[in-house]
Amino acid sequence: MSTAPGEIEALIALMARLPGLGPRSARRAVLHMLKKRAVVMDPLVQALSRVAASARECRVCGNISDHDLCPICADQARATGILCVVEDVSDLWAMERAGGFRGRYHVLGGTLSALESIGPEVLRIPVLVERVRDEGLREVILALNATVEGQTTAHYIADSLAPTGVAVSALARGVPMGGELDYLDEGTIAAALAARQQL
Amino acid sequence: MSTAPGEIEALIALMARLPGLGPRSARRAVLHMLKKRAVVMDPLVQALSRVAASARECRVCGNISDHDLCPICADQARATGILCVVEDVSDLWAMERAGGFRGRYHVLGGTLSALESIGPEVLRIPVLVERVRDEGLREVILALNATVEGQTTAHYIADSLAPTGVAVSALARGVPMGGELDYLDEGTIAAALAARQQL
Repeated sequence: MSTAPGEIEALIALMARLPGLGPRSARRAVLHMLKKRAVVMDPLVQALSRVAASARECRVCGNISDHDLCPICADQARATGILCVVEDVSDLWAMERAGGFRGRYHVLGGTLSALESIGPEVLRIPVLVERVRDEGLREVILALNATVEGQTTAHYIADSLAPTGVAVSALARGVPMGGELDYLDEGTIAAALAARQQL
Repeated sequence: MSTAPGEIEALIALMARLPGLGPRSARRAVLHMLKKRAVVMDPLVQALSRVAASARECRVCGNISDHDLCPICADQARATGILCVVEDVSDLWAMERAGGFRGRYHVLGGTLSALESIGPEVLRIPVLVERVRDEGLREVILALNATVEGQTTAHYIADSLAPTGVAVSALARGVPMGGELDYLDEGTIAAALAARQQL
């Protein structure tokens, strides 16, 4: 790729580091931008600069926002007695896309990991316990991923919250919408069977 | 996705328009940038701004460059008697990665298309004929894609160059490196058979 000018090479190398892009697709994306400067590249430069200048972490929940307080924490119509704990901002967005939850959030920013020395403080778990005490919450919903790390973290949080007396719940386990038993793993089927519901 | 601030939504929508990215991977890429601001987002903003400010078309060959004349056209060591015609800048880069060609290029910017009203002028074919006359070229290599559009364009160019008396050649057809006959299409095998070479 010695032909592209150094600056374009540098841009391709940076783009290639984004998840979902490799060197080849980054090259294609950059060429596409260069071909469509007015409709793709210039707006992208502006949007990226604006976001880089304005995006920050919400000081209450950890969501990404362009203000000190994210739109959800600032929304007075949101239920204040109920809090949903998620691993990451992408999970918060996924919950919001699904709709149905009208309370507020708490973003951990990851899961506990002894190997990567991610302890409870890094994940803002002490802050979560404080929030539960200060905001007088009724219920905390643990919407963590159904992975070993997510579940270890969920257990740790449930233990940390026990002294506060708040109700702690977790997302239901079962067959996903459109799921076919033949394609599901045994763990999911077993969990769905154990949590079977009366019709 | 109503949760993300408007500016982030706008950035995701722009990223999703790049080839190889969709709404989902664009969202992941933007979140990744926001998480790694110092090592991903800030350098990307800078690189993109620099490229947007400096990148332009080489006035001779149509390659992308940060100068009026691209590094290949400016390189005095490049052979001047031989010219390689490619459809797009990405093809020029592919030729350079392959190595082996030490002459200069002419980028068409596409293929002839009556439907999309892309005529010879849009593809800079008259300029190519002029270059052949003015630069006193010995040979023009047509390195166009082996598609119907590429081949139609190649024939048109060969016809246009006929009055100049320059030698016109095209890339060889045959079995690609590592190619297995069982997996190759009939057209490739037939072309390789017709162009078989004495060992």
